[in-house]
Amino acid sequence: MLVVGENISVVSKVVGSALKERNAGPIIKMAKEQKEAGADYIDINIGPATKKGEELMQWIVKSIQGSVDAPLALDTKNISAIEAGLEVHKGTAMINSVTGDKDKLDILMPMAKKYNSKIVGIALTEKGVPPDVDSRVEIVMDIVGSALEHGVPIENLYLDPIVLPVAVLQEQVHNCLKALEVFKQLKDMMGLDDDPRTIVGLSNVSQSSPPELKSLLNRTYLLLLLSRGLDSAIVDPLDKDLMDAVKTFDILTNKILYAHSYLD
Amino acid sequence: MLVVGENISVVSKVVGSALKERNAGPIIKMAKEQKEAGADYIDINIGPATKKGEELMQWIVKSIQGSVDAPLALDTKNISAIEAGLEVHKGTAMINSVTGDKDKLDILMPMAKKYNSKIVGIALTEKGVPPDVDSRVEIVMDIVGSALEHGVPIENLYLDPIVLPVAVLQEQVHNCLKALEVFKQLKDMMGLDDDPRTIVGLSNVSQSSPPELKSLLNRTYLLLLLSRGLDSAIVDPLDKDLMDAVKTFDILTNKILYAHSYLD
Repeated sequence: MLVVGENISVVSKVVGSALKERNAGPIIKMAKEQKEAGADYIDINIGPATKKGEELMQWIVKSIQGSVDAPLALDTKNISAIEAGLEVHKGTAMINSVTGDKDKLDILMPMAKKYNSKIVGIALTEKGVPPDVDSRVEIVMDIVGSALEHGVPIENLYLDPIVLPVAVLQEQVHNCLKALEVFKQLKDMMGLDDDPRTIVGLSNVSQSSPPELKSLLNRTYLLLLLSRGLDSAIVDPLDKDLMDAVKTFDILTNKILYAHSYLD
Repeated sequence: MLVVGENISVVSKVVGSALKERNAGPIIKMAKEQKEAGADYIDINIGPATKKGEELMQWIVKSIQGSVDAPLALDTKNISAIEAGLEVHKGTAMINSVTGDKDKLDILMPMAKKYNSKIVGIALTEKGVPPDVDSRVEIVMDIVGSALEHGVPIENLYLDPIVLPVAVLQEQVHNCLKALEVFKQLKDMMGLDDDPRTIVGLSNVSQSSPPELKSLLNRTYLLLLLSRGLDSAIVDPLDKDLMDAVKTFDILTNKILYAHSYLD
């Protein structure tokens, strides 16, 4: 599984003030510890970033990649800030994310093509969260169509079936699993050369649940998603129980060789 | 998931001496605590029981059911002891187990029919553990055929794809998952009226692994099996992390209604 570390987010107080003060230290530290814990990508969520978003994104990309050898997922609704980040990013970036809305797709897919970056396409439109499995599938079929149209390699596309909080929208949590099963058939359904990859923002599932349930809900849901072929997840890589569950999944499905010390 | 509690087994020292001394106290206690922890069935593994097996099985069935209102899974290779147990068992017993060997099937299937009991059919023959998925499927198709022939209702048949220790036979652990996926298609493949149920002896997966890994391996594997539609498992119901994982699975797949207190 491709692990995207979620911890550098404007919703965190530490990150919020570090961004405001352009204080790179705490952010670099968080990037380092996530990489050491097994993150393949580090997500950089700078929020809406309506003011000076371009400069902010370039500053954070350069700050992190100046100290930590890791690719980044650029996470903001400010499309110009995404492009500014891509301009200075080293290696293969990830754009997080594009919805199924044509106006967004027509800007972000050409950007993913130009910078050869990965791009997360989420089963969502401006109208909101799709009420059922079929609507999710319809939206991501539009997203795949747009990727093809703009020449984005299918293996760079990560489709997100939308994880919602089980405490609030329990049925949607089950729908997300069912949508993922259909996403895994898109290669055949659409006659693609390759499978689109799949990704989720995992921690949403335990939002609004009590703290003592969060890790259990997250890791259990992750195993159900991995069982259905999930390729990537945006998670807290410092949650050792979660990362141990992923390693154990890899052992039990014969992806890595068993040793008594496989957790070390 | 139908939970079968595995703890009353002759391999346990406490149970071994209790059986030898016909001392019902410790056995009744273990049955009670397993039931309270969520076991639907209590497995009674008396070993080969070559001497006085019939009397021993009747004694233990009567002892437990005299104090605990729970059905039992009768677990021994001694076929006469199984029948002796069925004679005195109250409610729907489970026969654990029959292999794919015709001589065994021709005795145990009529017994399951006569006593209207559930019966576990394992993907195994006298020749040993099948090397691949196809051989497992062939064996259980013979078992299903025998159930049909002898008039055992398909919903009373529990097919076991054989869990083996990941520390010793890692590839077989993955094969077991794949076999389960095929077992879940048997209704269509064989034109049955109902799905045969599926069951595993879960703890085998962590046999030969260090104690600190056992519970993690067990509960992770169980989630992978449940994701593939497993109906029942023989487990240690006193492993709270395991039982919590099962409850969380039920929540995330919308089988029981979410409440912040769902673990209590």
